Amino acid sequence: MLPPANAGLYVRVAFVHTGPHGKLRVKAIVLNEEGVSYHDDWPEPVPQQGEVVVDVIQAGICETDLQLARGYMGFSGVLGHEFVGVARTGSMAECRVVGEINCNCGVCTRCRSGLGNHCPKRTVVGIDRHDGAFAERLAIPESCLHAVPDSVSDDQAVLTEPLAAALQIGEQIDLTAVNNAVVLGDGRLSLLIASMLVRSVSEVQVVGKHQEKLERFERRGIPTMRLEQAGPEKSFDLVVEVTGSPSGLPLALSLVRPRGTVVMKTTVAAEHQMSLAAVVIDEIQIVGSRCGPFDRAINALLDHQVDVADLITHRYRLADFKQAMQTAVEPNALKVVFEIRS
Amino acid sequence: MLPPANAGLYVRVAFVHTGPHGKLRVKAIVLNEEGVSYHDDWPEPVPQQGEVVVDVIQAGICETDLQLARGYMGFSGVLGHEFVGVARTGSMAECRVVGEINCNCGVCTRCRSGLGNHCPKRTVVGIDRHDGAFAERLAIPESCLHAVPDSVSDDQAVLTEPLAAALQIGEQIDLTAVNNAVVLGDGRLSLLIASMLVRSVSEVQVVGKHQEKLERFERRGIPTMRLEQAGPEKSFDLVVEVTGSPSGLPLALSLVRPRGTVVMKTTVAAEHQMSLAAVVIDEIQIVGSRCGPFDRAINALLDHQVDVADLITHRYRLADFKQAMQTAVEPNALKVVFEIRS
Repeated sequence: MLPPANAGLYVRVAFVHTGPHGKLRVKAIVLNEEGVSYHDDWPEPVPQQGEVVVDVIQAGICETDLQLARGYMGFSGVLGHEFVGVARTGSMAECRVVGEINCNCGVCTRCRSGLGNHCPKRTVVGIDRHDGAFAERLAIPESCLHAVPDSVSDDQAVLTEPLAAALQIGEQIDLTAVNNAVVLGDGRLSLLIASMLVRSVSEVQVVGKHQEKLERFERRGIPTMRLEQAGPEKSFDLVVEVTGSPSGLPLALSLVRPRGTVVMKTTVAAEHQMSLAAVVIDEIQIVGSRCGPFDRAINALLDHQVDVADLITHRYRLADFKQAMQTAVEPNALKVVFEIRS
Repeated sequence: MLPPANAGLYVRVAFVHTGPHGKLRVKAIVLNEEGVSYHDDWPEPVPQQGEVVVDVIQAGICETDLQLARGYMGFSGVLGHEFVGVARTGSMAECRVVGEINCNCGVCTRCRSGLGNHCPKRTVVGIDRHDGAFAERLAIPESCLHAVPDSVSDDQAVLTEPLAAALQIGEQIDLTAVNNAVVLGDGRLSLLIASMLVRSVSEVQVVGKHQEKLERFERRGIPTMRLEQAGPEKSFDLVVEVTGSPSGLPLALSLVRPRGTVVMKTTVAAEHQMSLAAVVIDEIQIVGSRCGPFDRAINALLDHQVDVADLITHRYRLADFKQAMQTAVEPNALKVVFEIRS
């Protein structure tokens, strides 16, 4: 494919390969029915109407990527939806940018009512019918992009998407009415959620299985409990379920107080098999929570509201994707990123 | 057991039997591990501290009674929790009364914070460690009782408990923000819920399986859909799940719009086996809802806010409990009541 008209003006594109037949080729990590594979001659993405091309600087591995790689949602294409890059074209050309992942139609009833993230025609970057950011270049609607202030580093900016997802909880429920909360799960998203919660909730605890991961919370002053000690039952105003496991919701329902709230933050590929009688008997509110406000996340990074300093634990090249994705499931890892633009 | 000290002053007790050994015996429908049985020599209930004795006039059969009879919750004792009666003792002596079903301790943290219905020490009339109202007499905490105004008939008053349960939805969610709602289930509680919803929601539909039952909704001007026509998908602001079946929640999740609300109104004895991914992806709010405000329900009956005129379809004596409970599951029945005080 030919590059956009002004690509020749853009001088920082040392990494773009020219493949056979003169078409631009890029490095990319691609999922298809045979699994995940690395390509150094993947066709450069072609921007559609309203899209711009972004040169990806860094991209983070998320639990969803690992689940997609296992066949969840039947996605095929370039993986990756957490990134910081440099826009090549459009009104933010040559600016550092991060991108929202829902590419909506902008004109349907839902989009017009402010529910663009739930547009029925949407594609989702790196998740649903839209190539993602584990590649040197990404095409994405310009309307999804947010400029990154100079004082926010790449290491911070690459965390915008998961931090926005953490902040979404505060958009959906009134955290000022929450006195105590427990976060189930000791992974990377849990850390962002717990770090966000401690700003407004007086008692926050994290429940996890991995001593090494729990110590990261303790070092930030966030109390933790081992899974087998979780309790007391029916005592928490808010339980945030971030385990990625079908066992998380039954545990959440046992810990939340009557009339309390369970936020479901992770999808589970497997079906749940459980009694939901407690939801009715204890009049529990369950709130599904997904993508969040990028503007608030960028402000939170800018103001250092959330400490993301040691969240990135491992860095890999795209070519080393196997090791990167293996590392991302290991207990000593938090955020694993691909360093794409050298 | 001896009657309370002032029982002799109470002249309307023609039905109380004197059993062997001079102890008062009453008619009652009792559940134990062998099933449901009728007794005409059941010991009169003995009021505990703070309790009064109520002569039951009428008691209604609820879906929960039918589930309890199948062994759900392992209850044993006198069944029944929807009733109107006459208080024999206490500050409301000789008044007609209805009674809330949660008998709480009144002193624990939850009771003091206004969550008495969720007191961890509570017993529940006819449901959990507290004999119920399918009997000539019932002992119940005086604090549970509400006086019935003269202009509210017995046939109306016996519906106070399920009507309060219907009204609880409006206590938990802001119905003024709901433009369209669907009620899943065509039974007696669904009818009360739909009748309550049409007062504030412009589009209300009921989904059911039984033509005969659906016609009762149509006669009240409430549009209905057969189960197989339910839709369109993801289009309803509010879905109220009142099916009593494990298939209700998956259907509810398919009908509710993104960021919409599913109210779970009925417990299901069986486990759910289903994917809950839609809860997260569509950011759905699930709200468990149980007992409601008796004062508002009595006012609603007094002001004829909800049309309950033809809700009682069958009347039985306690001795005919088998036929009564059989009738209660039949499609042509709505509320089946025991006429206890003749």
